[in-house]
Amino acid sequence: MARLASRIGRLGPSPVREILAAASGQDVISLAGGLPDAGTFPQGLSLPTGWEQYGITEGDAAVRAAVSAHLRRRGLECPASRILLTHGSQQGLDLAAKLLVEEGTRTACPAPTYVAALQVFRLFGADLRGIDCSGQDLSNMTAALREADPSLAYCIPSGDNPTGATWDEARREALAQAADAQGFTVLEDDPYGELWFDAPPPAPVCSRLKSASWIFLGSFSKSFVPGLRLGFLASSADLFVPLERLKQAADLHSNRLSQALVLTDLSNPARETRLDALRTAYREKRDRFAESLARHFPQARWELPGSGLFFWAELAPGRDLRALGKAALEAGVAFLPGEHCYPGEPSLGWARLNFSHATPDRADEGLRRLAEVLRRG
Amino acid sequence: MARLASRIGRLGPSPVREILAAASGQDVISLAGGLPDAGTFPQGLSLPTGWEQYGITEGDAAVRAAVSAHLRRRGLECPASRILLTHGSQQGLDLAAKLLVEEGTRTACPAPTYVAALQVFRLFGADLRGIDCSGQDLSNMTAALREADPSLAYCIPSGDNPTGATWDEARREALAQAADAQGFTVLEDDPYGELWFDAPPPAPVCSRLKSASWIFLGSFSKSFVPGLRLGFLASSADLFVPLERLKQAADLHSNRLSQALVLTDLSNPARETRLDALRTAYREKRDRFAESLARHFPQARWELPGSGLFFWAELAPGRDLRALGKAALEAGVAFLPGEHCYPGEPSLGWARLNFSHATPDRADEGLRRLAEVLRRG
Repeated sequence: MARLASRIGRLGPSPVREILAAASGQDVISLAGGLPDAGTFPQGLSLPTGWEQYGITEGDAAVRAAVSAHLRRRGLECPASRILLTHGSQQGLDLAAKLLVEEGTRTACPAPTYVAALQVFRLFGADLRGIDCSGQDLSNMTAALREADPSLAYCIPSGDNPTGATWDEARREALAQAADAQGFTVLEDDPYGELWFDAPPPAPVCSRLKSASWIFLGSFSKSFVPGLRLGFLASSADLFVPLERLKQAADLHSNRLSQALVLTDLSNPARETRLDALRTAYREKRDRFAESLARHFPQARWELPGSGLFFWAELAPGRDLRALGKAALEAGVAFLPGEHCYPGEPSLGWARLNFSHATPDRADEGLRRLAEVLRRG
Repeated sequence: MARLASRIGRLGPSPVREILAAASGQDVISLAGGLPDAGTFPQGLSLPTGWEQYGITEGDAAVRAAVSAHLRRRGLECPASRILLTHGSQQGLDLAAKLLVEEGTRTACPAPTYVAALQVFRLFGADLRGIDCSGQDLSNMTAALREADPSLAYCIPSGDNPTGATWDEARREALAQAADAQGFTVLEDDPYGELWFDAPPPAPVCSRLKSASWIFLGSFSKSFVPGLRLGFLASSADLFVPLERLKQAADLHSNRLSQALVLTDLSNPARETRLDALRTAYREKRDRFAESLARHFPQARWELPGSGLFFWAELAPGRDLRALGKAALEAGVAFLPGEHCYPGEPSLGWARLNFSHATPDRADEGLRRLAEVLRRG
């Protein structure tokens, strides 16, 4: 038998994947993953030319320039020379963790947070410190950051996964000021930054930093096409060269056909019109989902997500929903028990519910089934 | 300033990349990288359908089945359930090293070997043990493996990078028997397995193992299109689940547009005819390059590569060619000093010379310039 590296002992399975694998082949309504609505994918793409040869590690120059301009519109100034194309923002997490996390590295993250980020941080040995980033009072967050004294703080300020929250100016400023004062690095994950439903998000946390190091992760999976697996990272000047070397070691460079297709989209004057239509389609799905949630779970606590693909709802206070996974699948509905989203001791009874993939009618039926499982359970 | 993980101290730059970066914008004939000849890329590709949505971690089922059949033709039996699509074989190195290499892991590799594999192994903390895999006498290799007592042995038995050698049956059997007897894992890298010029290579080392664990890395960069960044790994049963989790954590899954295009190629009855034409084109380039090498370096020691993209030539016995990099670039030629290819103390005076990218006339001129640099130098 092969001797495995000790870090593999910290490599848990993806709970979403396990849930979906158990559901496969059955007639299950999935509220578990975060799949975009396939009906929103852009039409009429054709194969571009000139992408066949090996490319450079950072990505094609024209694409990096387009991403730099794209970030400027989002409120983050970063020259093309500090943009690195990645195989999705998940790869940005891998590269950032390789760069910054080793056994015992104190890593602050929201509690709850994105499950696959937890997977990566744990793999590389992070000492995770969960931070309460909810509510109106910022002092919970800032006090927890002071106490945690992290090297690195992870956040998803626009369309947080799983909570759906979009941080306001004050919370963004508070994190940025803490980073500058305490000297920790900010890892800002922004997969949903363009997928807002009511108002665009404030400028990124990274744009507010004065001295702290930072990495900003972007994705074209939600705003364009997930099957392309293309995203990017931008970073402060001190981190870019080692990130580029890590990318070289990881897979040489990002696939150039995806880069070429993303470039046609970023250069398309009709892009904003397409995104507006996408936002409208998802806003409607979100609102229909909210109606279903209120109907089937009249007691549940949740807020309307302003961005992203998920509702975060307290369905059964104090009850560990992980115990219901099997019964839910048998009843034909899949969801992510919120307990999986915590870096440490979980709050019990919350669920992450995807509203983007199933049709409104199917989602309604899924929530009805889930409510029944909870009643029976 | 950010606190970096200590492993980043072991993350050297890619020497090829550094050389090419220094050469960029100048009229330099590059014999340094390993770019395919763009004239050999398949024509008439068109955008397939149905690849837009997120996919599963391991890769699309039809592609995995096609890769399994492809491996059977190469002499390696591996069911589709143990095939994982990767972003090139380089990503296979990253996943394998994450799985198997930590601080101090004894890792055997040929001396010389592929520079970007060294980069990955060093990043994860390998204690590298260089093994002499040249010559007729196998006892050098087997004795060195016994002495090294590795956990992991890396090899490129078909079209070795940089030496161009293709291991015969006896050497493959010897490595397999050592792995079974000593209990180390075999990591077999096969980017050039289909790019042979005289005779197809013997069955993979991994197909000969009785009890040892193994990972086999394949690529479609040389047999199809490098810009797609698509490859695969196959593994023994004990290693597949953690490899799949590592892939999930690294970038969720491989891009599905590349998978769809590779599937059209693997399913194309004319594929073997296309590969024959590719082999013929490269064989001619290889032979023209050999003539130029003999003309400009009549004293040099080298063998005709039977596979792959490189010549490995002793141009100046005992002389450290790293010292000539700058002068070569000024003279308008780039090459990889062989010293970079060693896990430990290098043999001096060897060069890795790419024959696939430059035209025969340009390659001849590049070798003429390089010979002049060496004479002056």
